[in-house]
Amino acid sequence: MSAAGLPVDPSHGALAPVGVRDVTLTGGFWGDRQRLNATAILAHAEQWTERMGWTGNFDAAAEGRLPRDRRGREFADSEIYKLLEAMSWEVARSGSQDVERRLRALTARVAAAQEPDGYLNTMFGRPGQGARYSDLEWGHELYCFGHLIQAGVARLRTAGPGDQLVRVALRAADHVCAEFGPGGRDGVCGHPEIEVALAELARATGERRYLEQAALFLDRRGHGRLGPIGFGAAYFQDDEPFRTASALRGHAVRALYLAAGAVDVAVDTGDTELLDAAIRQTARALERRTYLTGGMGSHHEGEAFGDDFELPPDRAYSETCAGVASVMLNQRLLLATGEARYADAVERTLYNVVATSPAADGRAFFYVNTLHQREPGRVPEPDRASPRAASSLRAPWFEVSCCPTNVARTLASLGAYVATTDAGGVQLHQYAAGRIATTLADGSPVELRVETLYPADGRVRVTVLSGPERAWTLRVRVPAWASGATLDGAAVQPGYAELTRAFVAGDAVELDLPVRARWTWADPRIDAVRGTVAVERGPLVYCLTGADVATARVRTDMAPLDRDGRVLVPIAAHETTGAPWPYPGTAPGGTDAEPELVPLTPYHAWGNDGPSTMRVWIPTV
Amino acid sequence: MSAAGLPVDPSHGALAPVGVRDVTLTGGFWGDRQRLNATAILAHAEQWTERMGWTGNFDAAAEGRLPRDRRGREFADSEIYKLLEAMSWEVARSGSQDVERRLRALTARVAAAQEPDGYLNTMFGRPGQGARYSDLEWGHELYCFGHLIQAGVARLRTAGPGDQLVRVALRAADHVCAEFGPGGRDGVCGHPEIEVALAELARATGERRYLEQAALFLDRRGHGRLGPIGFGAAYFQDDEPFRTASALRGHAVRALYLAAGAVDVAVDTGDTELLDAAIRQTARALERRTYLTGGMGSHHEGEAFGDDFELPPDRAYSETCAGVASVMLNQRLLLATGEARYADAVERTLYNVVATSPAADGRAFFYVNTLHQREPGRVPEPDRASPRAASSLRAPWFEVSCCPTNVARTLASLGAYVATTDAGGVQLHQYAAGRIATTLADGSPVELRVETLYPADGRVRVTVLSGPERAWTLRVRVPAWASGATLDGAAVQPGYAELTRAFVAGDAVELDLPVRARWTWADPRIDAVRGTVAVERGPLVYCLTGADVATARVRTDMAPLDRDGRVLVPIAAHETTGAPWPYPGTAPGGTDAEPELVPLTPYHAWGNDGPSTMRVWIPTV
Repeated sequence: MSAAGLPVDPSHGALAPVGVRDVTLTGGFWGDRQRLNATAILAHAEQWTERMGWTGNFDAAAEGRLPRDRRGREFADSEIYKLLEAMSWEVARSGSQDVERRLRALTARVAAAQEPDGYLNTMFGRPGQGARYSDLEWGHELYCFGHLIQAGVARLRTAGPGDQLVRVALRAADHVCAEFGPGGRDGVCGHPEIEVALAELARATGERRYLEQAALFLDRRGHGRLGPIGFGAAYFQDDEPFRTASALRGHAVRALYLAAGAVDVAVDTGDTELLDAAIRQTARALERRTYLTGGMGSHHEGEAFGDDFELPPDRAYSETCAGVASVMLNQRLLLATGEARYADAVERTLYNVVATSPAADGRAFFYVNTLHQREPGRVPEPDRASPRAASSLRAPWFEVSCCPTNVARTLASLGAYVATTDAGGVQLHQYAAGRIATTLADGSPVELRVETLYPADGRVRVTVLSGPERAWTLRVRVPAWASGATLDGAAVQPGYAELTRAFVAGDAVELDLPVRARWTWADPRIDAVRGTVAVERGPLVYCLTGADVATARVRTDMAPLDRDGRVLVPIAAHETTGAPWPYPGTAPGGTDAEPELVPLTPYHAWGNDGPSTMRVWIPTV
Repeated sequence: MSAAGLPVDPSHGALAPVGVRDVTLTGGFWGDRQRLNATAILAHAEQWTERMGWTGNFDAAAEGRLPRDRRGREFADSEIYKLLEAMSWEVARSGSQDVERRLRALTARVAAAQEPDGYLNTMFGRPGQGARYSDLEWGHELYCFGHLIQAGVARLRTAGPGDQLVRVALRAADHVCAEFGPGGRDGVCGHPEIEVALAELARATGERRYLEQAALFLDRRGHGRLGPIGFGAAYFQDDEPFRTASALRGHAVRALYLAAGAVDVAVDTGDTELLDAAIRQTARALERRTYLTGGMGSHHEGEAFGDDFELPPDRAYSETCAGVASVMLNQRLLLATGEARYADAVERTLYNVVATSPAADGRAFFYVNTLHQREPGRVPEPDRASPRAASSLRAPWFEVSCCPTNVARTLASLGAYVATTDAGGVQLHQYAAGRIATTLADGSPVELRVETLYPADGRVRVTVLSGPERAWTLRVRVPAWASGATLDGAAVQPGYAELTRAFVAGDAVELDLPVRARWTWADPRIDAVRGTVAVERGPLVYCLTGADVATARVRTDMAPLDRDGRVLVPIAAHETTGAPWPYPGTAPGGTDAEPELVPLTPYHAWGNDGPSTMRVWIPTV
């Protein structure tokens, strides 16, 4: 049991993580969202999983009422596991006895459905159901086990080995190893997830066989072991081994979970070839297959990555879960390499995908995160699960509802993304008001206070409350966009800036990041946004909403205005042809209209006032 | 039996159609393709339907081997029916005894599977299969009947009522009316098609009850009679009655077949409200939901129309069958209204969608017609059916293979699109070398010879070979792009130009259309092609292929060159950032590179030399 509560605990790496108990966020952008998670999102997810009958599936299993009373899709069990993981981190973070009680009650219902050999799934294995592992392509059994094991790891690291959820997860993991180990079933799951879970369980228990099983699943994939499906083998990354593949491809969440598991296995087995493969694929994704928001997945069809530079804003899939998965992957690569680009990606994705999904009241979610909404659309039905990708607004719940619980477990464990340590000192990666109490590699405790209004304001004041007497190094991340940043008044470059000093209690340093509205262009190879520009302010992407969306043309010869934290851009009306055939033989004319200053909305906040048009990329021509 | 062989024969309308026997195409763009259809495409489709076991399904039905030996998807029967329709028109057009023999043999196998009450489907109704009409959402039974009936109509109009295919189709139609008539099953098919088929059968037989059944199906749809599906009710146009809907929406082929049937029903019942609905929805599609190629369908997901102006070139679905269906719809509206815009749409779609699908050798087809191919892709496996939409090249056959047989029936009946008649004379809509022999409304025969190299050359010489002695009017379509056209040397405007004269045999008129390469821009509301330009030459869309696709920037201050029928455009290399994050804070730089003249390819011919990159819309910025 780790007192810190580490979501990820690699055996090696450039940087060592902090745990959810090491960090207290006190209000501000992320502190507010952690509170929203605690007070609204968790209960909302509990109520909906209950209402949909997905929690009841476990009762039905225990009471012998399956398959008759089974509700939901084949992966419904996993929502309860992700909720249990979220609750585990929440209890660790806040010490809430109420959440602890609900977590235990839910765990007991899950545990009652586990079979004597450790198998646990409400969809398979009973008379009238498909046989166990009879549908590895779509059955999601190992995927569900993966989420159960991740929940178990969260609990093991925060409540200890005696907890019921830990025991259930260990029995499940042992079952998986017995069934799929060397000499067992020579299969992999259609949806990666078990890899990252088993690798972490190995770390949490010290049992190497879980790591070996994760490595085995990784090596097996990519050779066509899964049967043919309409989307093709790339959909579940069974077209090519991870080790040799050059790109994240196919279903985005699958690809990203798999890559996260590959990093874990690579790090813990010292497999540099495997780590290089993850770095190579992630670099290509960040350079060519990522939306400005950090979102990934360009196709609705197959919820998949597109080709390089194929990033249509209006058909962006950018699933919330792919954002969560990208944060998982990039955080693992940050720990492995210490490179700022991964922390940049984590920040961008947290602010513009993960924070965008939940409504301001925590009771509705975006599943898909489009960058351009042409028609305002409708309010989803409040009392019914919505189709996952069809909604133009946040919906209370979905027929496939992976995103809300994924947001919940990410928000509950957010503290772990804020900082890391190494032999030389502490690194701050994400800026949020709060306290960090951790230990350096030599065992010296260190405690810091972070004061900031970031991202509304760029000043970040870090006060050393306690620490070793010797000199040590405080490193702070300067985001790639932050040209002109200063650290204690001295200019610093994007990447990491550092101060090495024998800090005494009360010493403070101040990082100043130039948080101002700025124009952002796209690589000309991103065809879908040619002739447009976006506006960012610090780590936040902004968007235009309302009536101007259809006809706006922005004047980039004038700078975007940053007035009292509001962003305004000069917009002139766009000429449109309105002809019976929309492809004229003459170029569209210019406009002489005097530009009007129009306020933009932070992307993460759009749609909170009801149906609306929206666009991130605003035309310049 | 109509000697002319009319595919469509409305009871009213501004213009009267000509039949496939009235028109002989002698070489040139379309004559060559009709020959390709006769010599390669028909046999290719015959071989593949056989090889896939789809034809064998009928034998298996007759021999009591179903469901065991059933092959293919639920709509596989329809491919054989579309092939039979194509063969029927081909026999009528060419008189081929070989095709007649194959058609009869195939008909006999189909007929053997028909049940005593007229029901005919290899997928439903037997022990071990779903009950008849138990899956109206996805079962496609009425859809299959629709294609069977269309084939029967083709045969009735070209071989007479004694033909076996006609008898099979009539028994099927009678079964449908008995089963789904007033007081019968209150349902509609998930895939429209039966409507257009029954309406035409009513015309061909003079039996009004078929028309009434078509009208009944139309009226029933749009009220949520079909069960819920993941794509939503708009997918199969069951969200709103056709009569009140404002847009073509949902699955494009479904929407277009339905609209074609609506026009037929509206015209024959004198239902102007229904006709207005078809006109309104088609106008909106042509103004806001159509690709430059004439292609329709912006989403891979659901093979569906997108929102207005949502026309991504790289994710264009633009299914070949939607092109065929759009030609059907626009031709019907041309006959109903006499307006040139519909003939313009037919021309554009025939040249840039229907002609694009088949390979030069007639043995591979595009199912999806993208307007931008970023990666060259791979050659599809020659011996296996390809996934329908995944291929980057024409494939020999598809798991869902609706397109090849749809192309075949369209090419075989192409003559019928060339001209129409009315009380005053003859109208030429499509320009193809050949002869037209028809009769005016007063019964006077008229015969014309058309000489042209169109679209390679814009001169069209029409010679009157015979006709009435009184004055009559020859009308010729001037396409919307053809500013500067002349008729016998006099300037004429887009729309229709006409000459009224007491023509004597040997009189010739010459239309000269300005077929030269030209820049074409897009309405600025089509966001996905902002900052780009396309090149057209006459009715042909051109495209850039090869290495320049990734980096080309075109110089529109210079005109595209039209040299010896080849189109060349000035291209300067594009600067790309190549940065680790593709969204820089500065605008992409210009280029000083001297432009190079690069040849373009007619869009319909792209991909015939193997895998290639391609783009229709070429960046200007």
